[in-house]
Amino acid sequence: MEALTFEKIQKARERIRPFLQVTPLEKSIYLSAEGRNVFLKLECQQPVRSFKIRGALNKILSLSDEARQEGVAAVSSGNHGIAVAYVTRLLGMKPATVIVPENTPDSKLEKIRYYGANVLLMGNCYDEAASQGMAYIREKGYRFIDGGDEDAEVYAGQGTVGMEIMEQNPDIDTILAPIGGGGLVTGIAVAAKSVNPKVRVIPVCTESCSAWTDSVREQRLYHEYPSRESICEAMVGGIGKLSYSMRGWIDEAVTVREETIRRAMLHAIWKEKIVAEAAGATPIAAILQHGNRIGGENIALVVSGGNADNRILVEEFQRLKL
Amino acid sequence: MEALTFEKIQKARERIRPFLQVTPLEKSIYLSAEGRNVFLKLECQQPVRSFKIRGALNKILSLSDEARQEGVAAVSSGNHGIAVAYVTRLLGMKPATVIVPENTPDSKLEKIRYYGANVLLMGNCYDEAASQGMAYIREKGYRFIDGGDEDAEVYAGQGTVGMEIMEQNPDIDTILAPIGGGGLVTGIAVAAKSVNPKVRVIPVCTESCSAWTDSVREQRLYHEYPSRESICEAMVGGIGKLSYSMRGWIDEAVTVREETIRRAMLHAIWKEKIVAEAAGATPIAAILQHGNRIGGENIALVVSGGNADNRILVEEFQRLKL
Repeated sequence: MEALTFEKIQKARERIRPFLQVTPLEKSIYLSAEGRNVFLKLECQQPVRSFKIRGALNKILSLSDEARQEGVAAVSSGNHGIAVAYVTRLLGMKPATVIVPENTPDSKLEKIRYYGANVLLMGNCYDEAASQGMAYIREKGYRFIDGGDEDAEVYAGQGTVGMEIMEQNPDIDTILAPIGGGGLVTGIAVAAKSVNPKVRVIPVCTESCSAWTDSVREQRLYHEYPSRESICEAMVGGIGKLSYSMRGWIDEAVTVREETIRRAMLHAIWKEKIVAEAAGATPIAAILQHGNRIGGENIALVVSGGNADNRILVEEFQRLKL
Repeated sequence: MEALTFEKIQKARERIRPFLQVTPLEKSIYLSAEGRNVFLKLECQQPVRSFKIRGALNKILSLSDEARQEGVAAVSSGNHGIAVAYVTRLLGMKPATVIVPENTPDSKLEKIRYYGANVLLMGNCYDEAASQGMAYIREKGYRFIDGGDEDAEVYAGQGTVGMEIMEQNPDIDTILAPIGGGGLVTGIAVAAKSVNPKVRVIPVCTESCSAWTDSVREQRLYHEYPSRESICEAMVGGIGKLSYSMRGWIDEAVTVREETIRRAMLHAIWKEKIVAEAAGATPIAAILQHGNRIGGENIALVVSGGNADNRILVEEFQRLKL
């Protein structure tokens, strides 16, 4: 397994630059406080509404022409699948095959299909989809586009988020980002700490899944993990091999309640006037729940995606009194 | 009164470029149909959540240092006031004075105040705030930053939206944008038609205010207009002198129902995963209500702002059945 290096991230940045606009890093009026400036890195404004486009684009651009023509496939809880489907269409490749677990929200399935990919539903969670899906992909001979387990090119693409943050505001001293497999957090950590070793990169976990914190504490890779139900379907299940092997780059995690994540999704619409999906809202939830205990004077929250499950929005809005 | 020229818009583009990112022009999966590509110009992603930042920034940058030091003031139904307040802080000027009608949503008042401006509530609608406010501004000797009545520099700033659209996709043949005073539509029309004279620029009106359509039909400037209640507080009241004098640049308007505007605001969150305020959602409403009758193969909808009134969102979400 190849390690992730800053050079790989720099190369990824050049590869993806012609295809993607830099997403804004915006100060939040509402989350900033005395002595604490909070900025939102708006990956929810990517054309596919998720940072996953970075890794998918970098990986697919790094393939040989021949490899690209074999056809690509992905296993995904949604956003990585949308990203792979979008990129194959963007680059004029033949349609991708995307394997998703059955709990994937309809809004995500609809987008994967729109971009022309073939969607296959397998298993009840990401881990099941992955084990069944990999067998299928091997059988068909497709080129596998890893969503975040051990492919350094995918991690390098996600790491461009960290490079952009440090360019947009070199004073950033703390970055919070959701952790699922760990590709985003690992990529950001290598990028940001290569620019400024003092920056802390803090993963945010949902209370429904302790795969990351258990792996770190027990020094044991939980590659699969029996998680509880969560509104962050992208943040449950096991962690990536590469992120586990690079855990030394990553600061201590914070955990947020599912209830607070819902409140953070509402905050995003109500105050910030953006749509954040559950995973994307977890760094906001961390500020709402932990406040100044997070530390830092200039904090960047990575709002990793915007494909919010509409059922959750309806539930939250219907709880409000006018 | 000075006319608006393409040269002024080009100059505005260079002035504002160092301060503002280009907003995306994104294809909408959900509004496109057979033979009709629909793109969203996402001014709701501006840092102040509205296109008004363009005109305010261009105007204030065009003032002499001396004029800037006198202090600036604005009359606004909200977004222009936020923009002026934001720009004065961005440029390190002394706080602006912003006069707003009493029906201005709290979310907008809060932002104007956050950026350090002094807010004065005057009158029950924009026209009343303007007549009372202008007297006050003259008395105080502030430099007036016109929101869209007759200042060509403000119109030129708004026109940069049209320049960007034509650069981002030269195939655009039809542009829909909300009309209030008319600065946005006039600016876009001069910009887009200077690049390609065949482009149609269609103003979208709410059924609650016929100021524009009456002015054009009767060949008479309705500078004030007794509008009905509307969820688009930025689109009611009279039209600007400069937009009236340049009406020859503008194609025939379409009118949308208030009910459809609400549906369009919900569509924005539900499908596009963006927050659009009522005025910003009117071009989407035009497609929902009029569909292919709008004509055009490559249509750009200017989602002019994102400061949605939360009460409307709550009402719409609470009407839904899960």
